[in-house]
Amino acid sequence: MAQFEIDEASDEEVARQSALYGPFTDAVRGLVDATIRTLVDDDEVRAAQAEIEAITERLRRRQLEGSFGVLYHPERRGRPWGNAVIGLRNPVAPPLTIEIDTSGRSWSDFHLGAAYEGPPGLVHGGVVSLVLDQMLGQAAGAGGRPGMTGTLTIVYRQGTPLGDLKAEAWIDRAEGIKTWAKGHIIGPDGVTAEAEGVFILPKWARERIASEEIVAPTPKYFE
Amino acid sequence: MAQFEIDEASDEEVARQSALYGPFTDAVRGLVDATIRTLVDDDEVRAAQAEIEAITERLRRRQLEGSFGVLYHPERRGRPWGNAVIGLRNPVAPPLTIEIDTSGRSWSDFHLGAAYEGPPGLVHGGVVSLVLDQMLGQAAGAGGRPGMTGTLTIVYRQGTPLGDLKAEAWIDRAEGIKTWAKGHIIGPDGVTAEAEGVFILPKWARERIASEEIVAPTPKYFE
Repeated sequence: MAQFEIDEASDEEVARQSALYGPFTDAVRGLVDATIRTLVDDDEVRAAQAEIEAITERLRRRQLEGSFGVLYHPERRGRPWGNAVIGLRNPVAPPLTIEIDTSGRSWSDFHLGAAYEGPPGLVHGGVVSLVLDQMLGQAAGAGGRPGMTGTLTIVYRQGTPLGDLKAEAWIDRAEGIKTWAKGHIIGPDGVTAEAEGVFILPKWARERIASEEIVAPTPKYFE
Repeated sequence: MAQFEIDEASDEEVARQSALYGPFTDAVRGLVDATIRTLVDDDEVRAAQAEIEAITERLRRRQLEGSFGVLYHPERRGRPWGNAVIGLRNPVAPPLTIEIDTSGRSWSDFHLGAAYEGPPGLVHGGVVSLVLDQMLGQAAGAGGRPGMTGTLTIVYRQGTPLGDLKAEAWIDRAEGIKTWAKGHIIGPDGVTAEAEGVFILPKWARERIASEEIVAPTPKYFE
């Protein structure tokens, strides 16, 4: 796939696939966590490896040639199911469930476990930036100004502990093809990291959006 | 674990564990990729899910209470095996194999597949920052100035295509407890993103390192 494709599935079909792939991908996320933390005997590890390889082989009998891409829809929210932060079908994604409103705000309550570690017990500084990039991008998109990241600056205030976290982002200002978004992550002891990003309207959206003063309803293509 | 612990394993034991967990974790990485891309029938997906849940349950019979933490060693390279970018035991990590030298340089050839997607066919902008945070941190550590990320700025020059990539980083300058590192990612069409980061010496290293003019041999604790 690996491109923006129009999502031709009916609402029912999307719901069906979501009910199938959501729990399946969650199971793989559980395995990812157990892979890092297991202390079972070597023979058990080797046996698990052989079984996992066999499952993978079966799953690969029919598969997409490349990456998942993004399925979008002119009316409902898109299906960025391969996305590394929010992808319903991507076990690398925690995943974040991000709420948005059309004033250009996004917010999320989420959990980061052992798979997102950098310094001991703390979220990897780069995972902090990964989450914030997605949050800021979705705030921009929610405000009708989708874009690719142009620059992203993270200021780290304190270590972000693994566990339950919050993130928020919002559009700070917009000018021509550029949108400035800001956001932060909040841990048990307050804000752990702040972000500012500039998002650049893609060419296909420029003519339509760049000249508008008023923030338009969200196209959501970049979720 | 979830802390800096001294690695008490012998070289032989580390080699043995590496030979066990390396291929095991690679198998889980293969499953992660197949999870995103599979097109097999629903029944096959459900069967795979049940098997994966059973494997996970077996692996969890004995496991670390929390995250992996970081095992370090005063002489050889440490074991940051849970790390989200380079962790040998972490299926979320691509993983990067990062070369370093004591002048404060790091470099890596690596591959990012479907699990790291943002826009269709492109690496997620936040994954770009994740990789660069790790690269810059290791350049700082390699130069004898390990640190937590203080600020990180990424400038995106073009989309980074999924596939084979290169990254490089180096210490730009150092002053007191701060180290400025720079780096970039290189794709088939040249530099895709540039980074600058400030890394702050942790308290335990300050007395020992902050006053030194000369860059010391690497403690490597933050790999």
